[in-house]
Amino acid sequence: MAKMIEAEMASVSREVGAFIESMLGRKDPLFKSAYHLPSHGGKRMRPYLVVKSCEAVGGERVSAIAPAAAVELLHNFTLVHDDIMDNDTMRRGVPTVHVLWGVPTAILAGDLLFAEAFQAILRSALDDRRARAAAAVLADATVSLSIGQFQDMSFEEKDEITENDYLDMISGKTAALFQACAEIGAIAGGGSEDSIKKLGAYGWNLGMAFQIFDDYLGITSNEEALGKPVGNDLREGKKTLIVIRGMQTRSREIIKSLLGSKDATKEQLAALISSLEEDDVLGYVRRKALAYVEEAKKAISTLPDSEPKKSLTQLVEYSIMRKK
Amino acid sequence: MAKMIEAEMASVSREVGAFIESMLGRKDPLFKSAYHLPSHGGKRMRPYLVVKSCEAVGGERVSAIAPAAAVELLHNFTLVHDDIMDNDTMRRGVPTVHVLWGVPTAILAGDLLFAEAFQAILRSALDDRRARAAAAVLADATVSLSIGQFQDMSFEEKDEITENDYLDMISGKTAALFQACAEIGAIAGGGSEDSIKKLGAYGWNLGMAFQIFDDYLGITSNEEALGKPVGNDLREGKKTLIVIRGMQTRSREIIKSLLGSKDATKEQLAALISSLEEDDVLGYVRRKALAYVEEAKKAISTLPDSEPKKSLTQLVEYSIMRKK
Repeated sequence: MAKMIEAEMASVSREVGAFIESMLGRKDPLFKSAYHLPSHGGKRMRPYLVVKSCEAVGGERVSAIAPAAAVELLHNFTLVHDDIMDNDTMRRGVPTVHVLWGVPTAILAGDLLFAEAFQAILRSALDDRRARAAAAVLADATVSLSIGQFQDMSFEEKDEITENDYLDMISGKTAALFQACAEIGAIAGGGSEDSIKKLGAYGWNLGMAFQIFDDYLGITSNEEALGKPVGNDLREGKKTLIVIRGMQTRSREIIKSLLGSKDATKEQLAALISSLEEDDVLGYVRRKALAYVEEAKKAISTLPDSEPKKSLTQLVEYSIMRKK
Repeated sequence: MAKMIEAEMASVSREVGAFIESMLGRKDPLFKSAYHLPSHGGKRMRPYLVVKSCEAVGGERVSAIAPAAAVELLHNFTLVHDDIMDNDTMRRGVPTVHVLWGVPTAILAGDLLFAEAFQAILRSALDDRRARAAAAVLADATVSLSIGQFQDMSFEEKDEITENDYLDMISGKTAALFQACAEIGAIAGGGSEDSIKKLGAYGWNLGMAFQIFDDYLGITSNEEALGKPVGNDLREGKKTLIVIRGMQTRSREIIKSLLGSKDATKEQLAALISSLEEDDVLGYVRRKALAYVEEAKKAISTLPDSEPKKSLTQLVEYSIMRKK
């Protein structure tokens, strides 16, 4: 199943990639730095979500390509800026934009990606009503993303972060854009208010599951699959659900010794993982992600059955089965 | 005349300021940092340009307020990010955002302002056609702004910058947004394609005049009026038209000795200004700005006469008569 949906995602990715290349593939050095991250692909789950949501309401796939490119551009904009803020040096197996071209150019490359995201929707063939509505959803989501990223950064300085704080943060940082993707797809496809709302709820729950599982992979996967070192979140002192939950168990001491420690070794991480597994922290986090998966499926259960709806069900299952 | 238009601008500024406060005036720390720069005003020429362009095509002032707030938010976004890139510590008489809250928060505050700019237009009462068209113009302008800022930064590392390079750079960095303001105002007011185009040409020429005169003020004005130290551009090694032109005169040696010199004194700057005046460099730059002023007036000469058209004529004259 994972293979099938990965192949489907790859097909959407190629179409969206060609669209993005047509916007950014210029020799100009600023465009080169802006195109660096999108040209290295990534899973492109968000554009896939736009396309399938469009098709799930009976829309033509072609109407979804420009909006799908828009959300991917927006996503890449946030990654470029987040990598500066978080001092991350690797992403998608290549050095980050600010490492290659310096902070000023990386700020500007992100800004350019942001502007191009709006251009992609607003200069598309969508009619005025759909283009306006889709762009408005994207603008709202960007506000949420900024708030979420700010919360994420401020967590590093705070001692007491609860599970609810964490869920609120990832709702803004991740789930808001997944929700926006599904809504934008449904808008582009001419869906009813009701179906836009249902797909939005689906997207939000998918985003929650995705982020929880992403944090989980960040500590349990391997560097080759991730394209960046395992345990980076921990080294940076990020308060993920694993950390928050783990602090309430016997794993507390080992977490405290490793959290924010830049030179945590692979051996120390392995010991931590054993301890977390033993204390049912990893199990708890997996179950939490699974609960959002179930909610996502429920949200679209009353939409008419169709091939794209099946793909959305597979997508949400994939979100917690993937290796990267 | 300057007094009259300043009073008119102040009135628009209050309306737009209230709108911006309604969007950003929250206790949340991210919103506080985003609101820092807009809350310290500035001239707000850009929103004034939106309002007057709207009225000049027969539109209601009320339709222009949200788009006017949008361009001001967008302008402030670029200032917050530019100040990081240029290491500027003061603006509008107060410390810059990254000085007060650090670079990561300043990047994010800028991103939030950017998103709010699009929200302001896309969530406004404008009909779908106008909202979409206005937002598309704003997105295009932001692409130009990014390219212009990138050119500006790269000039610092290049030895040979021609007058044409400079004009091309300020076209992107400044004139594109002035053009967008006039077009957005005309779109919001329901103007014809022809009047949108004419007002756009007016706005572009106004922007060129404004930026040339801004660079001129940056060296000839005083710190109190500017809200930042005189000669900052020179200390940062910026290749303004004054520098480019001056390098072709006897002022060459004194420019070479001061360009990029962080500790250039007020006395050295005074000597430079005398030399530039003597070599007719300042006169040349003033005449250049004046030529764009004339082009701007010509661009709207065939629009029907009206009070708002008179204001636009005064605005472009003001752009090269102001003290700050």
